[in-house]
Amino acid sequence: MQKTLDYIHQNKDRFVEELFDLLRIASISADPAYKNDVLKCADKVAEYLQKAGVDNVEVCQTKGNPIVYGDKFINPNLPTVLVYGHYDVQPPDPIELWNKPPFEPYIEKTDIHPDGAIFARGAADDKGQFFMHLKAFEAMINTDALPCNVKFIIEGEEEVGSVSLSDFVNENKEKLSCDCILISDTSLYSMEQPTVTTGLRGLSYVEVEVEGPNRDLHSGLYGGAVPNPIHTLSRMIAQLIDENGHITIDGFYDNVQVVSLEERAEMNKLKDNVEEYKNAIGLRGVEGEKDYTTLERTSIRPTLDCNGIWGGYTGEGAKTVIPSKAYAKISMRLVPYQTPEEIIEKFTQYFHKIAPDNVKVTVNPHHGGLPYVLPIDTKEFQSAKKAMETAFGREVLPFRSGGSIPITTMFEQVLGSKCVLMGFGLASDAIHSPNEHYGLSNFFKGIESIPLFFQNYAKQ
Amino acid sequence: MQKTLDYIHQNKDRFVEELFDLLRIASISADPAYKNDVLKCADKVAEYLQKAGVDNVEVCQTKGNPIVYGDKFINPNLPTVLVYGHYDVQPPDPIELWNKPPFEPYIEKTDIHPDGAIFARGAADDKGQFFMHLKAFEAMINTDALPCNVKFIIEGEEEVGSVSLSDFVNENKEKLSCDCILISDTSLYSMEQPTVTTGLRGLSYVEVEVEGPNRDLHSGLYGGAVPNPIHTLSRMIAQLIDENGHITIDGFYDNVQVVSLEERAEMNKLKDNVEEYKNAIGLRGVEGEKDYTTLERTSIRPTLDCNGIWGGYTGEGAKTVIPSKAYAKISMRLVPYQTPEEIIEKFTQYFHKIAPDNVKVTVNPHHGGLPYVLPIDTKEFQSAKKAMETAFGREVLPFRSGGSIPITTMFEQVLGSKCVLMGFGLASDAIHSPNEHYGLSNFFKGIESIPLFFQNYAKQ
Repeated sequence: MQKTLDYIHQNKDRFVEELFDLLRIASISADPAYKNDVLKCADKVAEYLQKAGVDNVEVCQTKGNPIVYGDKFINPNLPTVLVYGHYDVQPPDPIELWNKPPFEPYIEKTDIHPDGAIFARGAADDKGQFFMHLKAFEAMINTDALPCNVKFIIEGEEEVGSVSLSDFVNENKEKLSCDCILISDTSLYSMEQPTVTTGLRGLSYVEVEVEGPNRDLHSGLYGGAVPNPIHTLSRMIAQLIDENGHITIDGFYDNVQVVSLEERAEMNKLKDNVEEYKNAIGLRGVEGEKDYTTLERTSIRPTLDCNGIWGGYTGEGAKTVIPSKAYAKISMRLVPYQTPEEIIEKFTQYFHKIAPDNVKVTVNPHHGGLPYVLPIDTKEFQSAKKAMETAFGREVLPFRSGGSIPITTMFEQVLGSKCVLMGFGLASDAIHSPNEHYGLSNFFKGIESIPLFFQNYAKQ
Repeated sequence: MQKTLDYIHQNKDRFVEELFDLLRIASISADPAYKNDVLKCADKVAEYLQKAGVDNVEVCQTKGNPIVYGDKFINPNLPTVLVYGHYDVQPPDPIELWNKPPFEPYIEKTDIHPDGAIFARGAADDKGQFFMHLKAFEAMINTDALPCNVKFIIEGEEEVGSVSLSDFVNENKEKLSCDCILISDTSLYSMEQPTVTTGLRGLSYVEVEVEGPNRDLHSGLYGGAVPNPIHTLSRMIAQLIDENGHITIDGFYDNVQVVSLEERAEMNKLKDNVEEYKNAIGLRGVEGEKDYTTLERTSIRPTLDCNGIWGGYTGEGAKTVIPSKAYAKISMRLVPYQTPEEIIEKFTQYFHKIAPDNVKVTVNPHHGGLPYVLPIDTKEFQSAKKAMETAFGREVLPFRSGGSIPITTMFEQVLGSKCVLMGFGLASDAIHSPNEHYGLSNFFKGIESIPLFFQNYAKQ
């Protein structure tokens, strides 16, 4: 193992340079205008897999963006680890809040990252994280230290709901068969308190439209007599969450897993420093569901958030218009045993129910995903925990994250294997936000932890 | 007068062609990108004034957009009429809802306009309407029928609050001195029931900003624990109007003129056909302040409307973000004796009062304007009423409009003269909306009515 770690140490600068090349490609999957960059990025990933020594590398076409596959078989008696990642990224909006262009990576020191962090869209989510696996693999193969068979599957639609992945996995069950799935697309609780993510929330995402008059109207001539869709939509959004932070949708909590008080107490051992939390994001005060801590609100409880709202005149200056329509994007984070289908259905019914008669309401569902839980008594969890304890030299705890990786449940259902969410980001990485970054220490701790995981997992 | 009417009749086609040239200029005052078109439009107006036979034509520079002036003195013993109009237009957004490009005028027949209507941004508001005065003047001067002195003042900032006009009028009191001010920038109740506008609502316009976290956050990691500014703003907007349609701002109604039951009864003689009203704008139902008719809600009662709202991700697809900020543009229509300063003050105080502690709220006032009333026993009203009764061959009623022309009060205060709001538009003209248009009959009825007004006004 020392030879592998030495190899990593000797090639650090090149690893970063190679990652930069990947970060320079604006592989934004949400915006069709970037389709060519997405394709370019898939080819680049394939090229890097090949260079790292992976066999059978393929850029597999799908109805959407390509999926990059590759593998290395060394012995049929050894376990097989499937590494999953995604090369697509979130849109950089609002672009004006970036300190430097989002697709021109650079390194800068910060308070949290005294050794420097890589700034770019995708640095942490997920290019910087899946790239650790390529480099860890390269280090293992070049130091004769690969203890397992490995398969790679790097997709290009994670940020838009992994639309093509499910078909691909279903059509390639044998090709993708494995003993476990290793994913780095989550965060540590902190550098001082490393964690393995053992739970993820699911997701339901809808776009709603409220129509009042059939055309935009002059607010002087019509103001006071017609339903203004912005007001109606605002009132409807206001109604979705009550004064105790409860979501009001009929039956929303019906299937929510009740986490025992014991488990909640265990969970709250993780330092829940609300002051630090507030300072990190310039918050004047937290809010949320009554009788739950901030940690619980963002992990074991389902939530509802407006992710976007628009209607009427939003340009410079003043326009006195009553718009015909107002729109919002609304997402709900789910916990076991809610399902996206169930929640979309309940949301849609409720949203129509609370709509006044004088507007027309449309609800368009986007993608969704099931919540996921990895039990801590599994070989998968224990291998990851021990690997990271060696790399970090500290105790590693299980942690339930508030985010969603909808494909975890699909993998488990189709391939029959557990997902290990061994991510090395931090909550402060600003993923999905301007100035996304990924700490160099995190990047290298990740590359070091991965061969240790392989070793632990092969041994048992 | 017959000679003048004949002249108008003989030159109809040319009048429309000339107006088309004016409509082809995208003189959007709200958007600085159109500054050159605004300047080009001012020059074109000056050119047309000169061609019509107006003397002393000047394009007067201001801190903002130029004001075009011109006059014709025929006799110091005759009264002087100051004609006001504006050559700037509203932005055409949402551009995709126009059937044809907004600055390429064309004529098309509609149910309401069997003789055809001119479709273009500014067709009714206000290029088509102020242009009637240029053509009526040309007709009078070419048929030796001008019975008054005339001054023209055509500005370029009406749609953004006439910012420079007040300074200009104050600095040019003598130059602009007059007996009355004639304005065509309003609508008729209908072609069957022509009206002179005797009241206008005032305006207060603000832009508000609600900040939660200091940067955009991932809604999975943070959802459920931080104040989402879209929700906070929605709740605040929802609180501004109660379930009876009353505006909840403290003291909002303190200075509202109470219109007597007798006057309200008189006012409601105008056919208040809610079904027709609803059909014209595809409305499923009206709403508004309890115990008032639709007509009253849009004329004698103050109102509040969101004219725009935005925040978070509004592009294609799904982005799971909690935005740092959400914004809205909110306008209030005022009635006598509310003032914009008073209402901005009350709005700002109230909006801060209802804001929760965990967000930062900013209120930025835009322009405002006082409400206006023209008593019906004045020479000004009577001259307009009789002119239109001759042109239309029907009884003409006084009508209070819900819109605002903030400069009417300023004119009265600075110049000491009354404004006559003799407009020929229709509520269905879609001003400030896609597919704005102005009926050809309306255009020509206007050109015919103006010389009759001059005649009546000079006589008395």
